[in-house]
Amino acid sequence: MKVIKKKSSIKNVKFGKNVTIIEPVNLYGCEIEDNCFIGPFVEIQENVKLGRNTRVQSHSFICSNVSIGENCFVGHGVCFTNDKFKNNKLQTNKKKFLKTKVGSEVLIGSNSTILPVIINSKVVIGAGSVVVKNCLKRKIYAGNPAKEIKKK
Amino acid sequence: MKVIKKKSSIKNVKFGKNVTIIEPVNLYGCEIEDNCFIGPFVEIQENVKLGRNTRVQSHSFICSNVSIGENCFVGHGVCFTNDKFKNNKLQTNKKKFLKTKVGSEVLIGSNSTILPVIINSKVVIGAGSVVVKNCLKRKIYAGNPAKEIKKK
Amino acid sequence: MKVIKKKSSIKNVKFGKNVTIIEPVNLYGCEIEDNCFIGPFVEIQENVKLGRNTRVQSHSFICSNVSIGENCFVGHGVCFTNDKFKNNKLQTNKKKFLKTKVGSEVLIGSNSTILPVIINSKVVIGAGSVVVKNCLKRKIYAGNPAKEIKKK
Repeated sequence: MKVIKKKSSIKNVKFGKNVTIIEPVNLYGCEIEDNCFIGPFVEIQENVKLGRNTRVQSHSFICSNVSIGENCFVGHGVCFTNDKFKNNKLQTNKKKFLKTKVGSEVLIGSNSTILPVIINSKVVIGAGSVVVKNCLKRKIYAGNPAKEIKKK
Repeated sequence: MKVIKKKSSIKNVKFGKNVTIIEPVNLYGCEIEDNCFIGPFVEIQENVKLGRNTRVQSHSFICSNVSIGENCFVGHGVCFTNDKFKNNKLQTNKKKFLKTKVGSEVLIGSNSTILPVIINSKVVIGAGSVVVKNCLKRKIYAGNPAKEIKKK
Repeated sequence: MKVIKKKSSIKNVKFGKNVTIIEPVNLYGCEIEDNCFIGPFVEIQENVKLGRNTRVQSHSFICSNVSIGENCFVGHGVCFTNDKFKNNKLQTNKKKFLKTKVGSEVLIGSNSTILPVIINSKVVIGAGSVVVKNCLKRKIYAGNPAKEIKKK
């Protein structure tokens, strides 16, 4: 066949109770706990877990191997990554994809880009940030690359 | 019910004449004046107003409380915001969502992120910018955070 | 008619063999060679050429006049541009849209923004970058604006 067309869909997803989804979305092989919200035009890959009450807004992409805790807010157009192009090459072995762990009550501003890092609970990521290092303190991080910022 | 699925749609939108829309889009509670263009994979929330002849390109997200004037160009993947996570908390009271006002003949480059600000008429925002302050002069602003840039 | 609704679709596209597409997408007037992959929520405009084995991930936008070589990876949410808003004006004459040329084996990280430039073969663009100048050396470029970065 010349062109293989598949439809975005919801496949092999383990859902908790009372999850709301605005289609079209492309979700597969992930776990989404109670009361989560998934906005339109979202893709979530396999081996992702979203804790209870977490909201993923429109246009966001959550790659495989991302774990997000409870009561988090993932803004619009947020992109997670699991490959740092080591030695300038694309990782094609899924077992070697890197992991990202996001705690609970984390707020991630819209259009942010999250490299494979640890983001602790109650951290705030400003909109448009590019997070390249772990965010371990309960502070606000913003910018490209994202750094801890002082309150104004 | 375990999972509540809704479809992206066009609901309670006040349209002017000759508006073109490329579906799928998710538009609700907004006002879109004559001759506007809305590209695919766009979400526009309630209490948004787009003036005549304004174009919103694919993948953009316009949150509630954004007003955009006439003859504007909103590039692809542009994200507006209405919550600055004050005191490190998500604003859940819709009445307290912040406002953004964009004048007329404004050009906003693709993948830009717009915090709740004022952008005056004839301002240019470079692609990939993160706008965190008002843009009041008729100049070009770019970068993260966006600053006035000199012509080259 | 008050509102003109069109559907995202695949129109006038020249396909090679064994191309995989995850719908919905909006593709028109472009050429996509053998074994390419196009993720969901992607828009590709006219006069775009993708070489063999190139992958365009979800949420990306490839504007007209972009040529991408073989074996490239275009991450999620990547935005190309073909108008630098010269003299603070939107270019409306399609013949004057600018061109972007990307070589082969190029890796472009997610959420990057690419102005009209030349990116040579084997270049790596870090996630979240804003590329405003040519990337001619076989190096890693990242940041806003993107600059050559040293390996760590």
